[in-house]
Amino acid sequence: MSGGRAQATAFAPATVANVAVGFDILGFAIDGVGDRVTVKKIPEKTVRITRITGVPGANEIPCDAITNTGGVPLLNMIERCQLGFGFEVTIEKGITLGSGMGGSAASAVGAVVAANALLDQPLSREILLDLALDGEALASGARHADNIAPCLYGGMTLSEVSPVASVIELPFPRDLRVVVVNPGSRLDTKQARGVLKREIELKTHIAQSRRLAMFIAGLCESNYEWIKRGCEDVVIEPQRAHLIPGFAAVKKSALGAGALGCSISGAGPSVFALVQGAKTADTIRDAMIRAFAESGSISAQGWVSEISSRGAIVL
Amino acid sequence: MSGGRAQATAFAPATVANVAVGFDILGFAIDGVGDRVTVKKIPEKTVRITRITGVPGANEIPCDAITNTGGVPLLNMIERCQLGFGFEVTIEKGITLGSGMGGSAASAVGAVVAANALLDQPLSREILLDLALDGEALASGARHADNIAPCLYGGMTLSEVSPVASVIELPFPRDLRVVVVNPGSRLDTKQARGVLKREIELKTHIAQSRRLAMFIAGLCESNYEWIKRGCEDVVIEPQRAHLIPGFAAVKKSALGAGALGCSISGAGPSVFALVQGAKTADTIRDAMIRAFAESGSISAQGWVSEISSRGAIVL
Repeated sequence: MSGGRAQATAFAPATVANVAVGFDILGFAIDGVGDRVTVKKIPEKTVRITRITGVPGANEIPCDAITNTGGVPLLNMIERCQLGFGFEVTIEKGITLGSGMGGSAASAVGAVVAANALLDQPLSREILLDLALDGEALASGARHADNIAPCLYGGMTLSEVSPVASVIELPFPRDLRVVVVNPGSRLDTKQARGVLKREIELKTHIAQSRRLAMFIAGLCESNYEWIKRGCEDVVIEPQRAHLIPGFAAVKKSALGAGALGCSISGAGPSVFALVQGAKTADTIRDAMIRAFAESGSISAQGWVSEISSRGAIVL
Repeated sequence: MSGGRAQATAFAPATVANVAVGFDILGFAIDGVGDRVTVKKIPEKTVRITRITGVPGANEIPCDAITNTGGVPLLNMIERCQLGFGFEVTIEKGITLGSGMGGSAASAVGAVVAANALLDQPLSREILLDLALDGEALASGARHADNIAPCLYGGMTLSEVSPVASVIELPFPRDLRVVVVNPGSRLDTKQARGVLKREIELKTHIAQSRRLAMFIAGLCESNYEWIKRGCEDVVIEPQRAHLIPGFAAVKKSALGAGALGCSISGAGPSVFALVQGAKTADTIRDAMIRAFAESGSISAQGWVSEISSRGAIVL
């Protein structure tokens, strides 16, 4: 064990992946909700997860490092950096399990960001990205960066994992607001991936491409009309909507209340809406919560947020 | 026949459709190559195409208005606008037939733009777009706007035809240059569409979406690195490349000489490359022509151009 800090806590934000037209590639971070991961140096070159608290069900998460989304990246960090020490980890989950708000990504990112603060030679964000992806692979079955990237970098990200993991930080209009509503049920990412057909029609690809191009141009040019026209998923949402009771009603309520677009957050069951300006965001959140309640999800919880330009940070 | 001009000539530029990652949605106009369409009022409410000259084979194009890409839009214009007169049309083709450089679109757009100059109440660009699409449908079998839109609007366009035809004009970096090389052979658009599978793998859709998002962001942010990384077609080009003898060698030569990207122009057989700045564009054009020659296309012809911000104009 060398010198420097002996302990650090990182806050890693909740994230919305896919963002309607960017399945597996787009994501953004939100404010105020996230996981806190505290990492402490220990002499043994291993990872001990001693406590997982927070949201209901947090105690169900495996503490065995090799099966924990925060543990795996740290085990790999020890090996990759040939560290002379290990980590003791405690996780305070702020993101509801299986909510589609990037909880597993937040624990992975929080762990590497906190641990990085304890290294004599901190690692680059690119390497932290790579390490955190090892954790995400545990949760979703593959190295998807669409939650990891915005959680680590903040903002609106376009990510790729192959041939090497890399992230582009996209511009977005400053008064773009986000509503995220979690119905309170739980949906397994692997299950949500399982319903997807392995092929899509070429004409559907074209229709989605047109929307994606319009959405990206809208973000870059702060053109809300383009964002609105682009923010409609014709590939994934139609295949997954049935997994979320009340989805159609919730989406209708969001659009009816003035949202630019509304779709599934990550693999669901949380639903997000994009909104121009803070003014109508509260109304839209309330309408979405009400629509979920009328569909039987009486414990739905909602947030209004900016797209957080700040990713995970050491507290 | 009411008053006003009795005759007008329009120049309609050549265009590159698809632009690697924007099959059926993206296109741009180039400078210096195009069709000239002259339209004259006649008392009969009909369209008479009296002469088609220009590039070799121009005389093969049917002069019967109902089977001519410039004739059909004008017949529809007469009906739609309940005109009290008709048009006599002569077309001077500057765009090689079946070259993938938007020749049929240029004749359609040239015809409506010239005719529009003869109307007492000129039509909006949106209506001209709609009319010109009727002509394109003759050539490609469907109302595709990816050549029509840039030919009419100029610049780099993102277009849709359903539910209504509409065009977004995308920004692009001012020193972006284009090389287009026509090998001299002819490829029928319907044949080139015929080789395309009706479905694509979801993972291919994701890979292409990532590139498209990067490409659009690169155009908007004048980020050449993003344009370069985004300008690679993994959906259509692999299915069509075999239709163009020497394509792989030509692409390799373009990239080797410093092009940002290189792919098929429209349905081919012309090939385009995007280039940063005018300096290397000539070298890249020469390398592409040489590669075509080594593959047996000894009469390849090439152009270096800006993305023309001006669409079809009345001369």
